Amino acid sequence: MTGAVRRPTQIDRHRFPIDEWRLVETEYCGDDLGHTETLFVAANGYLGLRANPPEGRDAHSHGTFVNGFHETWPIMHAESAHAFARTGQTIVNVPDAKLMKLYVDDEPLRLGSADLEHYERSVDFRTGIVERDLVWRTPAGKRIRVRSSTMVSMVHRHLAVLSLEVTMLDGTAPIVVSSQLLNRQDGEDEYHVQSAALGAGADPRQARRFDRRVLLSRVARHLDVPEGDGAVLGHRCAESGMTIASAYRHLIESDGDDPETSVDLRPDHAKTVMATTLDVGETIRINKFVAYHTSTGVPCEELADRCVRTLERAASAGRNALEAEQRGWFDDFWSRSDIRIGGEPSTQQAVRWNLFQLAQASAATNEAGIAAKGVSAAGYEGHYFWDTEVYVVPFLANTDPEAARRLLRFRHGLLDAARRRATELSQRGALYPWRTINGEEGSAYYAAGTAQYHINAAVAYALERYIESTDDTEFLHDEGAEILVETARLWEDLGFYAPAERSGAAGRFHIHRVTGPDEYTTVVNDNLFTNVMARFNLRFAARVVRELRGRGGEAIERLIRATSLVEGEEDTWDRAADEMYLPFDEHLGIHPQDEAFLDLEPWDFEGTPPDRYPLLLHFHPLVIYRHQVLKQADVVLAMFLRAEHFDLDTKRRNFDYYDPITTGDSSLSACVQSIMAATVGHPELAHRYFEESLTLDLVDSHGNSADGVHVANAGGVWAAVVNGLAGVRTESDRVHIAPKPLPGWTSLCFSIRHRGARLRITITEEGSTVDHLEGPPVSVVLGERHHLLESGGAARGPGAPAR
Amino acid sequence: MTGAVRRPTQIDRHRFPIDEWRLVETEYCGDDLGHTETLFVAANGYLGLRANPPEGRDAHSHGTFVNGFHETWPIMHAESAHAFARTGQTIVNVPDAKLMKLYVDDEPLRLGSADLEHYERSVDFRTGIVERDLVWRTPAGKRIRVRSSTMVSMVHRHLAVLSLEVTMLDGTAPIVVSSQLLNRQDGEDEYHVQSAALGAGADPRQARRFDRRVLLSRVARHLDVPEGDGAVLGHRCAESGMTIASAYRHLIESDGDDPETSVDLRPDHAKTVMATTLDVGETIRINKFVAYHTSTGVPCEELADRCVRTLERAASAGRNALEAEQRGWFDDFWSRSDIRIGGEPSTQQAVRWNLFQLAQASAATNEAGIAAKGVSAAGYEGHYFWDTEVYVVPFLANTDPEAARRLLRFRHGLLDAARRRATELSQRGALYPWRTINGEEGSAYYAAGTAQYHINAAVAYALERYIESTDDTEFLHDEGAEILVETARLWEDLGFYAPAERSGAAGRFHIHRVTGPDEYTTVVNDNLFTNVMARFNLRFAARVVRELRGRGGEAIERLIRATSLVEGEEDTWDRAADEMYLPFDEHLGIHPQDEAFLDLEPWDFEGTPPDRYPLLLHFHPLVIYRHQVLKQADVVLAMFLRAEHFDLDTKRRNFDYYDPITTGDSSLSACVQSIMAATVGHPELAHRYFEESLTLDLVDSHGNSADGVHVANAGGVWAAVVNGLAGVRTESDRVHIAPKPLPGWTSLCFSIRHRGARLRITITEEGSTVDHLEGPPVSVVLGERHHLLESGGAARGPGAPAR
Repeated sequence: MTGAVRRPTQIDRHRFPIDEWRLVETEYCGDDLGHTETLFVAANGYLGLRANPPEGRDAHSHGTFVNGFHETWPIMHAESAHAFARTGQTIVNVPDAKLMKLYVDDEPLRLGSADLEHYERSVDFRTGIVERDLVWRTPAGKRIRVRSSTMVSMVHRHLAVLSLEVTMLDGTAPIVVSSQLLNRQDGEDEYHVQSAALGAGADPRQARRFDRRVLLSRVARHLDVPEGDGAVLGHRCAESGMTIASAYRHLIESDGDDPETSVDLRPDHAKTVMATTLDVGETIRINKFVAYHTSTGVPCEELADRCVRTLERAASAGRNALEAEQRGWFDDFWSRSDIRIGGEPSTQQAVRWNLFQLAQASAATNEAGIAAKGVSAAGYEGHYFWDTEVYVVPFLANTDPEAARRLLRFRHGLLDAARRRATELSQRGALYPWRTINGEEGSAYYAAGTAQYHINAAVAYALERYIESTDDTEFLHDEGAEILVETARLWEDLGFYAPAERSGAAGRFHIHRVTGPDEYTTVVNDNLFTNVMARFNLRFAARVVRELRGRGGEAIERLIRATSLVEGEEDTWDRAADEMYLPFDEHLGIHPQDEAFLDLEPWDFEGTPPDRYPLLLHFHPLVIYRHQVLKQADVVLAMFLRAEHFDLDTKRRNFDYYDPITTGDSSLSACVQSIMAATVGHPELAHRYFEESLTLDLVDSHGNSADGVHVANAGGVWAAVVNGLAGVRTESDRVHIAPKPLPGWTSLCFSIRHRGARLRITITEEGSTVDHLEGPPVSVVLGERHHLLESGGAARGPGAPAR
Repeated sequence: MTGAVRRPTQIDRHRFPIDEWRLVETEYCGDDLGHTETLFVAANGYLGLRANPPEGRDAHSHGTFVNGFHETWPIMHAESAHAFARTGQTIVNVPDAKLMKLYVDDEPLRLGSADLEHYERSVDFRTGIVERDLVWRTPAGKRIRVRSSTMVSMVHRHLAVLSLEVTMLDGTAPIVVSSQLLNRQDGEDEYHVQSAALGAGADPRQARRFDRRVLLSRVARHLDVPEGDGAVLGHRCAESGMTIASAYRHLIESDGDDPETSVDLRPDHAKTVMATTLDVGETIRINKFVAYHTSTGVPCEELADRCVRTLERAASAGRNALEAEQRGWFDDFWSRSDIRIGGEPSTQQAVRWNLFQLAQASAATNEAGIAAKGVSAAGYEGHYFWDTEVYVVPFLANTDPEAARRLLRFRHGLLDAARRRATELSQRGALYPWRTINGEEGSAYYAAGTAQYHINAAVAYALERYIESTDDTEFLHDEGAEILVETARLWEDLGFYAPAERSGAAGRFHIHRVTGPDEYTTVVNDNLFTNVMARFNLRFAARVVRELRGRGGEAIERLIRATSLVEGEEDTWDRAADEMYLPFDEHLGIHPQDEAFLDLEPWDFEGTPPDRYPLLLHFHPLVIYRHQVLKQADVVLAMFLRAEHFDLDTKRRNFDYYDPITTGDSSLSACVQSIMAATVGHPELAHRYFEESLTLDLVDSHGNSADGVHVANAGGVWAAVVNGLAGVRTESDRVHIAPKPLPGWTSLCFSIRHRGARLRITITEEGSTVDHLEGPPVSVVLGERHHLLESGGAARGPGAPAR
């Protein structure tokens, strides 16, 4: 019992030693800059600064991203057809404020060639501060200690605080720091020249390059501040019209003379040059406050003013106070979100790195969604997909319900665009775009894009997760109900009832020509995952509409106004759900992934060497589609998301059939395989997949972590622990906890939310404990026993089985 | 019993009166210039001159095309994937030599605004000469007769002969004729400004525009001829590197003084201005000889020399001799190809127009194929598709076997590219590109492109048709065998044997994820058409290899060297053919178009107004694919191409099922529906579809005749008469002739070829006659009776049943 491909999971512990609360890099390496830029990214869900050196130059990609700040372009289809996606959307690399270039004796520090006596870089999960500490032996033989730090504020989302601290360890030298704000789009200071070609490359997962100016200069002005330096630039996206202002100012602490300061201001490049002379033992520390404000249309001048105010407040608070605030934020985060693992500090560190990335992706998204890569890079063009709803919202619903609610409100805000898209596709209701920033469909390959109608059900699923955790009926009955009506409506219109004369599936409700999450099989009939999720969506919508009709009053009136809901419409949804056809193969006792899946030719795994994965980069889609080979196993995912609809034997047979033909070429695969391997009783396999999910970015096992953090996988790590190893699931009103064998840990402890209550779950091999921390009573089934827990109460039960 | 859409078939007989041997236009109309430019195109399969007025200006598109002369460009996929087509290929509008602008009293003749006393344009099917005759009342009130003609030589493929004849009917006037050769790509003298946007528009059937220079000037020189005028231009395609020279010279006959002549020569524009004065009754006639030579790489200078030689020969022969030669060519063509229809001159004219277009598309293709539009326009970018093999080659095999052989040699020449393409698609053997000029796959939408593997079988089918007509075993055993081996190899590798444990289709040979000719259903499993044709291809290949092995000698050795054929490989093909799975629905007694077709939702034809056709321009592909709705009925086509594999009852049931759900949005549909309606006993429907096919371009019922002649449909007209109404088909060695009710004709007469013999078939309601004109004996089944006919013999049998 193994998946088709085994991926590496070993972290290089010489370079990245174990530390339960930090990721630490002990030596500089220029070979995998793209990877480490992502590993040490600083972000808050709104603003992301890749871990580029302040010196500039050597980098995989100098990146600064603002969630949702994008340029648009007309999608040019090589061969177009009706209603193909028209509006390309690409997240924009905004002006780079990370630059603080250091010159000693007029010699630039550049890591790629510098003689370094000491080097350490770290990110502390308790503060979100990235630090670098190095000792440089200059070409003149002098030793200089250079410390720098980056903090993107979790509390003030427009703010980042950088610092550079230089200490003379030997002799005396003139020191120059050139602190910059650079719009990089013309390739200035780009060490790696970017391709000028418009259009996507061969790897569809990478971002697009523009061959024209995207950010047009609108503002460039000095900051009128007491200390005299600082600048603000304003830009407007040529096509999308989005606006941005970026600004910086400094606070300098120097043991020597105050540095001489001059500011050079151009439309795309502001530069403050600070020059001083340091004697041995002397230090200069430059604190750089950076602000970004963006808008869909507010003039740049106004955004520039906002930047100035943000910087004023930050400067008057000072770096120490801001850092203290940040620590407070993370204290709260970890109290809600931590997963504590006993006896395995290596795993503990890796788990926390993933949870930390979830914080960095979700803390301050506000009106936006969470892109596939958060704001850590431009991979997948900064688009929002279904995976946030299915892989990230469950984590948020349990740890930060407000963040989950924001994401649902974001989806609600896209409803009008989704209604228009449904109309374009000759459909009633609403169809969410497969990938988007601004709400319009951005997928240029419909077979693995628009055909993934299941995104509608993913939104409904996220809503269910949020309601399950919070019992927020007010939201459910307002925005939630509107989403449910329009998505259910689409399903009812998309499918149809097979005529009675067709054998087998006669009279049943079928959904044809759709693509499930597994993108290695596209545009099929009766995809099991899609039908299961559509059924859930239909029933959920019908139930909520009935509730609202029963109550009467303003809520149902508002819903009827918003959706033109008609009398009895919910009955048509229930009927479709009741008659939903779910393919099942009696002979194998499994659910075919789609009606024709089991008829396909087996893939020749033995004849496929490891370097031919991911298959999508080495085989024409028609070759992949013709075979029984999966990118991710969507029947297995369906069994996780709608666990109550499958008995254990069916789950096991399904898992045992699909796992060996699943390549895991999708980063969404390993965590789900881990959960379901644990569920059906394959603990070793569950642990292996857990390790793969856990280390996916840490070891760059998919080879594209340079394109950003796999945020959904980070959510999957959480789910693999909570739903997989701890066996948490909800059924009816009850929380079931059925611990599975742990991978050598002495204990596991985390908390979850259920209907407004918080529970802490502690698992050892000796026993399990559920502590009710706050909120209304909760029904808990632990092992075989049922407990009704009230606040302050606890239940004890059997522990994790031995391996 | 009707198809889903009824299309107009009525020719405007006021404007285009009936003439059995000519198409005549009696009044000028500026509203449908694109249509009439195509109707009156002059072409020989190598060179095509759209029927633009010599005065230039008003036109839908000024077009001059040379078969296969194309530019390449990198296909930019909005979202790319492995092995997607890379090299775009677009036929180039070459320098325009049609221009002979007339000025009287310095006033230009321009049809759109001229005061015309008389106007007639015609093309004579017996000469291929397009003539225009008009009387113009100039702004000064003088009447001038202007006659012009265009002949593209069928005998000298590089040559066209134009003429302009001006006669003063009143008064005296200075006459100026500016005869030009213009590379139009910069839009000079374009009345309709072409879009500068690169990329295809919303209608995928139209040609692409370039936003860069395609033809780079290489040669521009005066012709060194006794008469002193004429010029030659040489150009090279910027990316494809193809080269072209174009040239003209004049022979002038004038009643008045010899005109003063001056030549203006620029890199993209040569102009000879001839000025004289005509008195009443005087005439000047300017004969313009035009030559084009093209190459994949020969320097332009050399091509220019070839043009000079072509023009020298033409000028010394003179226009009259060239026209006589042309008449001789057409005499021969009609003796081989005519279909004579008694009692219906309107139909007679329309049939001949279609046959004439087949001549114009096929006469001198030489090393090239026949594009979807011949050389009549740039529709479908001048690409070669499968439809030539299936719709045109049968006509040629019966009327001009050399032309059929050339097309097969063209396909043989593409084998290496097709082998490379198969390798890219992870397949053995050869895979012909769905659309191409240079042999590389040019289809940017694989679902309705590369997935149409059936093109391989189309080539094998064309080979069978050619061999059937000619018995050319030499060709069959050399180029033919190589094609068969590589195409059969692909099928055997593409399909697979279902494992025994799969019910129903266990152990059978399946071909998955392919698209049949019906592009309204794509990437399906076990497409009936594909499987039937693949089976034929496999068996044909196995039979020929066995024949060659039996004979031994050089032919089999050569084949083994060329294809690395291994011992017994042909057995694997026969096994795949024997086990080929053909979907069949026991309940309905029909063949599903593919395994899942009958499970699809019915299309709402009643809710689809006429202006929503063709569906492809009004519905997203996913919407179309989800329904039982056809662009063309490929099961019906399979029953025509492999008639012997279906009994009459099955044919009828299939036809009756598919016809009502067939939109005929493909121009390849009507002729096949006509043939099979006739075959299964629906004579009225057969006649209606025949009318639709017959008049498709003549009435522009698909709305895109401006983009060129639907050449395959013209071949389909021939087949609808011969195979449909006359009921001709071959089975084993025999030619079956089973006349069906005629649509009101008193007689029908045409000739066909079979195994080297020629037969003339004459059908009336009173009786049918088969005359053996030449060649070896032929077995004929006429009505129920079998005849062995020898040269000079005749068989008589029952005539066409009354309607």
